[in-house]
Amino acid sequence: MANSRKILVIGGSAAGPKTAAKARRMDQHAEITIVQKDHDLSMASCGYPYYVGGTFDDRNQLIATPTGVVRDPIFFMNAKGIRTLINTEATAIDRDKKCVTCKNLETGEGFSLDYDKLVIATGSIPIMPPLPGFELAGILSLKSMADADYLRKVRDQGVIKNAVVVGGGLIGIETCEALNLAGINITVIEMMPQILPFLDWEIAKLLENHIKSKAANVITDNPVAEFLGKDGKLIGLKLKNGTELPCELAVIATGVRPNTKLALDAGLAIGETRGISVNEYLQTSDPDIYAAGDCIEVVNSITGKKVFAPLGDYANLQGRVIGKNLIEGNKSTYPGVIQTAVCKVFDYNAGSTGLSEASARANGFENVVAVIAAAPDKPSFMGGMLLVIKIVADADTGKVLGVQCAGPGDVSKRIAIAAMALHAGMTVEDMCNLDLPYAPPFSPAIENLVTAAHVLENKLSGRMRGISASEVKAKLDAGEEIFLLDTRGPDEFEQMRLGLGEVLIPLEALRSRLGDLPKDKKQEIICYCKISLRGYEAASLLAAHGWTNVKVLEGGIMAWPFPREK
Amino acid sequence: MANSRKILVIGGSAAGPKTAAKARRMDQHAEITIVQKDHDLSMASCGYPYYVGGTFDDRNQLIATPTGVVRDPIFFMNAKGIRTLINTEATAIDRDKKCVTCKNLETGEGFSLDYDKLVIATGSIPIMPPLPGFELAGILSLKSMADADYLRKVRDQGVIKNAVVVGGGLIGIETCEALNLAGINITVIEMMPQILPFLDWEIAKLLENHIKSKAANVITDNPVAEFLGKDGKLIGLKLKNGTELPCELAVIATGVRPNTKLALDAGLAIGETRGISVNEYLQTSDPDIYAAGDCIEVVNSITGKKVFAPLGDYANLQGRVIGKNLIEGNKSTYPGVIQTAVCKVFDYNAGSTGLSEASARANGFENVVAVIAAAPDKPSFMGGMLLVIKIVADADTGKVLGVQCAGPGDVSKRIAIAAMALHAGMTVEDMCNLDLPYAPPFSPAIENLVTAAHVLENKLSGRMRGISASEVKAKLDAGEEIFLLDTRGPDEFEQMRLGLGEVLIPLEALRSRLGDLPKDKKQEIICYCKISLRGYEAASLLAAHGWTNVKVLEGGIMAWPFPREK
Repeated sequence: MANSRKILVIGGSAAGPKTAAKARRMDQHAEITIVQKDHDLSMASCGYPYYVGGTFDDRNQLIATPTGVVRDPIFFMNAKGIRTLINTEATAIDRDKKCVTCKNLETGEGFSLDYDKLVIATGSIPIMPPLPGFELAGILSLKSMADADYLRKVRDQGVIKNAVVVGGGLIGIETCEALNLAGINITVIEMMPQILPFLDWEIAKLLENHIKSKAANVITDNPVAEFLGKDGKLIGLKLKNGTELPCELAVIATGVRPNTKLALDAGLAIGETRGISVNEYLQTSDPDIYAAGDCIEVVNSITGKKVFAPLGDYANLQGRVIGKNLIEGNKSTYPGVIQTAVCKVFDYNAGSTGLSEASARANGFENVVAVIAAAPDKPSFMGGMLLVIKIVADADTGKVLGVQCAGPGDVSKRIAIAAMALHAGMTVEDMCNLDLPYAPPFSPAIENLVTAAHVLENKLSGRMRGISASEVKAKLDAGEEIFLLDTRGPDEFEQMRLGLGEVLIPLEALRSRLGDLPKDKKQEIICYCKISLRGYEAASLLAAHGWTNVKVLEGGIMAWPFPREK
Repeated sequence: MANSRKILVIGGSAAGPKTAAKARRMDQHAEITIVQKDHDLSMASCGYPYYVGGTFDDRNQLIATPTGVVRDPIFFMNAKGIRTLINTEATAIDRDKKCVTCKNLETGEGFSLDYDKLVIATGSIPIMPPLPGFELAGILSLKSMADADYLRKVRDQGVIKNAVVVGGGLIGIETCEALNLAGINITVIEMMPQILPFLDWEIAKLLENHIKSKAANVITDNPVAEFLGKDGKLIGLKLKNGTELPCELAVIATGVRPNTKLALDAGLAIGETRGISVNEYLQTSDPDIYAAGDCIEVVNSITGKKVFAPLGDYANLQGRVIGKNLIEGNKSTYPGVIQTAVCKVFDYNAGSTGLSEASARANGFENVVAVIAAAPDKPSFMGGMLLVIKIVADADTGKVLGVQCAGPGDVSKRIAIAAMALHAGMTVEDMCNLDLPYAPPFSPAIENLVTAAHVLENKLSGRMRGISASEVKAKLDAGEEIFLLDTRGPDEFEQMRLGLGEVLIPLEALRSRLGDLPKDKKQEIICYCKISLRGYEAASLLAAHGWTNVKVLEGGIMAWPFPREK
């Protein structure tokens, strides 16, 4: 057909194919071409750790439709009417001539493709720390299909005994689990004081404790100083504090940076986060060029600030917005992100949406209030599993700023609910009477997140004085005299306890044993139980009987991230 | 303590104990008394079907704290400082004297209790249809702990072979599953044309099909006419159409009505739905009397109308609001409900929030648009399970009015997300770019509900012309000439197909086989595949090639509720 528009897409992983497919559905006559450097197309890269770990064995599932058709150039041409040039690198954009110089990586042949509209979806590049020994064989990332193939071979061959993952972020932790499932001794090395940096320390620590309980090791606050080799092969590494670890494999998962070379060379505006700048239509500084996925920066709609947020679901949603705008003109906007993430961590799950307490403070919220609440994710008779939830709010407005959740229970649902609360700009009070689906196979009679909102409301209204585990630990470490009151039953105390000099008075006995409490009514008393519901009831009782400095250990023993006696 | 306020609560199941416990935490000096007709307190009544079905065996788990302490009067007194009078019926309220006449059901003794504030939490009563033979032994409901005990004994004894459940609502379906798990031949009898009346017919039908596949039977559109007995015992029943079914047990689950006798006798205002009228503070027409739980009516915040919505989670949330208002004065409001529900249905799950398409129309929304979308709940390589989602929206405003979901996948999470969208008053467009937690173990790269919103947006914008399975069936039944185009592959077609004269042209071949389509460009063509994504792509292609009456079968074969060839 004459005058059909030419759409050229650079990048064939997530945002690129989604853009192309949406544009095709909107306009069956456009000429749509995808240029892809890699051999594969539409790779489900978030699935790599599960392929490496053996959750499934058929590599094609990473690049196939749900009915098993591999998404190769023939599929794209026949099913979608989209031309894909694989093993082809786009090397330069000529914005005046509206063409892109390309190179066939197999033949070396160079050629040029015209466009009416160009889409840059060049993704991100792993950040590889330039440490001594970095050239050794056995050091890689888990970013490409080739990396996944390599690590899957490692699993299947069973030769490698010791491996490290450098970096304790999402990919690092998923890779740690995958290699552990592959039967490899695995250590995660994180230079910062905690893994999973989108979580606050005390939540991340619960997950670190769980990983360590699964025969994987975690070292925090200790960067890698040097890779050690023999005959060109990795045999170990040395940490900054001098510790040496033997390992034949190191997976670098210290983050990614936007792949912006093409955009930069073409003179497109790049943002402060080093991602390509785009407007609400996902249009770059050149109106004929759009960009999506890991190579751009987006707005965090809670802070209003630009962020680099390379996640696969964003890439897909952005691709759809661009696909529409390419055909209809700029009618669709991308509203930005709230930075929602979830991760399987062995038998636990971890997730976050919005701001952590630390990031809320770092982003200028001055009057931040947070609470930790713990409870099973459904009734105990239905086999409920623990969830620890932290809600962060702006004390001035009551507005929820972020929610974190960790534990063996259904984290994903709670983070989804919380993300919706953030999208809606809800306050803590708004969350107190939510009408959410309840039936015993799925949730407790009051949804965990609603209970957490109740606890935070109790705190905001002054009815509950909460104290975090970290604050209690700091007081104990500083030698402060505090009266720790465990309000559980003797059997529970025998099975599990902090062992920090606490006094056990079961809640049921407390009314008749007030005489066992400090005579000094100003003495600081910290009440708790397994999850601190009984602890809260005890604190209410003591406050009503004249003790003036009574607090509740938030989340109880279940949220205590430090070592316990038992 | 002198002058402590007297709080009297009538009802000890859900709303009553929650009110009392919250009031206690707010005021350690109040005199708080619960009057409970039953022997048990704080029963987890939503758990009865799971106890009956053998999910757990310890009856005490229904009335115990998570640490296993039975919530009896001693527990309430020691742990909560709350007096509970069990086996005690409140028989009359004297609002002038502010006292309640009570009767000890064991001794027959009558007495009176004063109150400053009274809370009515008298719950609901099963509706038992007054049919011939209704007095026969073997006919009961599943409403009380005694009912649960009886049915559990039925399970454990293994004598009863055939049972019926009369009523296909939530409790009826849960009871059906429980008795099926107990090894009993079970038939659900529903007088209306569908089970689970909060769902639209075509979604309910998918669940009915699933139940029938699990060796339980479902009869709809056919009320019970008579119970048949021998020697005073149930031996069968007769349906209106004359069918006779043998059964030794009949569980009546035809709904409940608010238990308002006390309130009515005391002259309190009763609403049109026959529940006790309360204001936003959950206060009755007498300012000193509050009411909560199954005995009240509440506002549906989507329609603004009063509804009778007896759900356990509402009772708990309402109890908390009253507990606060009793102590602080009326500061806390209950915002009403959106009628969110979820239910396990054998290996499927079913849920709904807001209005169904039928209820939206019945509630006066004139320009209703709905769409059905089907997809796995996570990537296929992670073992994704099907979800069928129906979104109902107001076409004038784009506002989402309700969401239904059914399938073996994680329904509860999707209904929770949808409920939040309704709470926030979101439009379909608002739902198109939600930032929800994504990782392969938990969801597809684009969350199912977001995909469903995309499909509905395609429909609202006129890009997609959808047609429901029911509409297609009606056209076929009326003998209309339609061209059904299945766009899947031949292997898929061999495994499963409608068998209604459809033509198979795989999407990949469609561009080169346009000549196989009707020459008459006005001929109605209905495209589909397993879930109708390829069907949608095919429809776009045909429309671009001049066919003017091309539609997409919404949800594809997965949402087809009628019999198929295979």
